[in-house]
Amino acid sequence: MPEFLTLLPPDDARALLLSHLSASTTDSVVIDVSSSLGRITADDILAPHPLPDFQRTTVDGYAVRARDTFGATDSLPTYLTLIGEVPMGDSPAFEISAGQCALIHTGGMLPNGADAVVMLEYTQNVRGRGDLHGRPSEIEIFRAVADGENLIRVGEDVAQGQLVLPKGSLIRPAEIGGLMALGITSVRVARKVMVGLISTGDEVIEPSQSPRPGQVRDINSYTLASLVEKSGGRRNVMGFLVTSLKS
Amino acid sequence: MPEFLTLLPPDDARALLLSHLSASTTDSVVIDVSSSLGRITADDILAPHPLPDFQRTTVDGYAVRARDTFGATDSLPTYLTLIGEVPMGDSPAFEISAGQCALIHTGGMLPNGADAVVMLEYTQNVRGRGDLHGRPSEIEIFRAVADGENLIRVGEDVAQGQLVLPKGSLIRPAEIGGLMALGITSVRVARKVMVGLISTGDEVIEPSQSPRPGQVRDINSYTLASLVEKSGGRRNVMGFLVTSLKS
Repeated sequence: MPEFLTLLPPDDARALLLSHLSASTTDSVVIDVSSSLGRITADDILAPHPLPDFQRTTVDGYAVRARDTFGATDSLPTYLTLIGEVPMGDSPAFEISAGQCALIHTGGMLPNGADAVVMLEYTQNVRGRGDLHGRPSEIEIFRAVADGENLIRVGEDVAQGQLVLPKGSLIRPAEIGGLMALGITSVRVARKVMVGLISTGDEVIEPSQSPRPGQVRDINSYTLASLVEKSGGRRNVMGFLVTSLKS
Repeated sequence: MPEFLTLLPPDDARALLLSHLSASTTDSVVIDVSSSLGRITADDILAPHPLPDFQRTTVDGYAVRARDTFGATDSLPTYLTLIGEVPMGDSPAFEISAGQCALIHTGGMLPNGADAVVMLEYTQNVRGRGDLHGRPSEIEIFRAVADGENLIRVGEDVAQGQLVLPKGSLIRPAEIGGLMALGITSVRVARKVMVGLISTGDEVIEPSQSPRPGQVRDINSYTLASLVEKSGGRRNVMGFLVTSLKS
C-alpha cells in the first residue's frame, strides 16, 4: 500500500470529530399546534379530558332503547313513537322512554334513556313528519340492535390523562388533528437542528461561476442543504474550506 | 329507504362541484434553485453544456497510457516514470508520453496523452518523492488497465442539450444538485396551489373553544391544512359554513 494513503477507520474518525464538539443540547420552544407540522414534541402530552366527552352516534338513524328492538325483522318490524330530533351541537331536551325513539344525525349526542342507534337504512317513517292529524310519527324498525351499537362511549377514543403523544414524537397531520380534538392549541417542541455545511476541495466553485478546466461546481452543499431542510432542520451553508495551497 | 336520504353518486357530485368552478389555470414563477425544494418545474430544462465537461478520474491513482500497463501483475509489475501531479481545479501543464505517469486525485482532470487511471492500491512508489539523487520516482504498476478505465468521459453523465428535467418534475434534493452541477441557479416553477378549506356542521367549534354538550372541535380543517402544507400547497382555512339554523 502506498506510503501516503493513511486513513482512519469510520469509528475512529467519528470519535475524533465528536471529541472536538461541545456536548449536544436539546432546547425547546412553545409554538402553535397549527404551525407545528414536522416538529418533534419536547414533552409528554396527556389528554386533559376524555374523547369523546359525550356519548355520540356513529350513524344517521334513530336513538332507541336496544331492548325495544329485540326480535325486529323485515317481515315483523317493531314500531316506535318518534318524539323528536337531536339537535347538532347541543344536548337533546328530551329523554327516551319505553317504545320511543328520536331522529339523530352522525356525531349527535345520545339522549338520556337511549343506549343504541338503529341505522336509517333499517327504518321507515310510517306516517311522515307533517302528519295532518297531529299524531306523532311512528317509525318501523326492521333490525334489532344491541346495547351500545352504533355509538361511541365517553373516553372510547382517548381516556382522560392518557398519554396521547410521548416526548420525541414527530408531529404529522394526524397528530395535529388529535391535539386539536383535545383542545390543545400550543405545544412545546424541540428547536430545529442547525446543520452547518462546509465544502472541501480546491477544484470546487460556486454553481453560478463558470468552471475553468479541472474545476467543478459545488453540488453537495446544495443537495445536502435541501436534505437538511426536507428533514426538518435549518441549513447553514458555510462556504469552502481550501485543503491545500494551489500549485 | 327513508324519504329524506337523497344522495348524489360520487361522479355526479364531483361534476356538480366542478361546474361551479372557473377553468383551472397554471401560473408560474422564476425562483432560485437553492429555494426550490418541493416545487414543480414549469419548463423543460435542457443541459447547457456536457457534464462532465472535461475527462476526469473517478479514483486516486496514476494517470497512464493503458497500453503501457498491459501484462502488469503482482509478480511482474510494470515500471513507469512519475513526471508530476495533476493539480485539483486546474488543467495539468504536462502530457503523458510512453512509459510515463502522473499522480492524480479523484475528480482531477486527465492529462493529455493519458487514457486510463491505475488505482493507488495497485501501485508502489519505488524511490519516494524526496529522492536524494534527484532522479525521478518510478512507480510500480501491479495491474493492467483498459483504455477508459477509472475515468468519466466528457458528457458521460449528461450530453449537451439533453433533457435533464421535463416540465412537471418534482424538485427533490437530487434535482437541486443536478441543476447546480449544470450551473442552472434559477428555475421556472408552477405557483403553489392554494387550497381553501370550509368546515360544515352546526356542532363544530374552534379547537380553542370549550365544547358545550354535543359540540366537537374542528379537527378536519387543521388536519387537511397540514396535509396541504405537507404536499407543497398553500392553505387557506376559510372558517365554518353553518348548514342549518340552530334550533
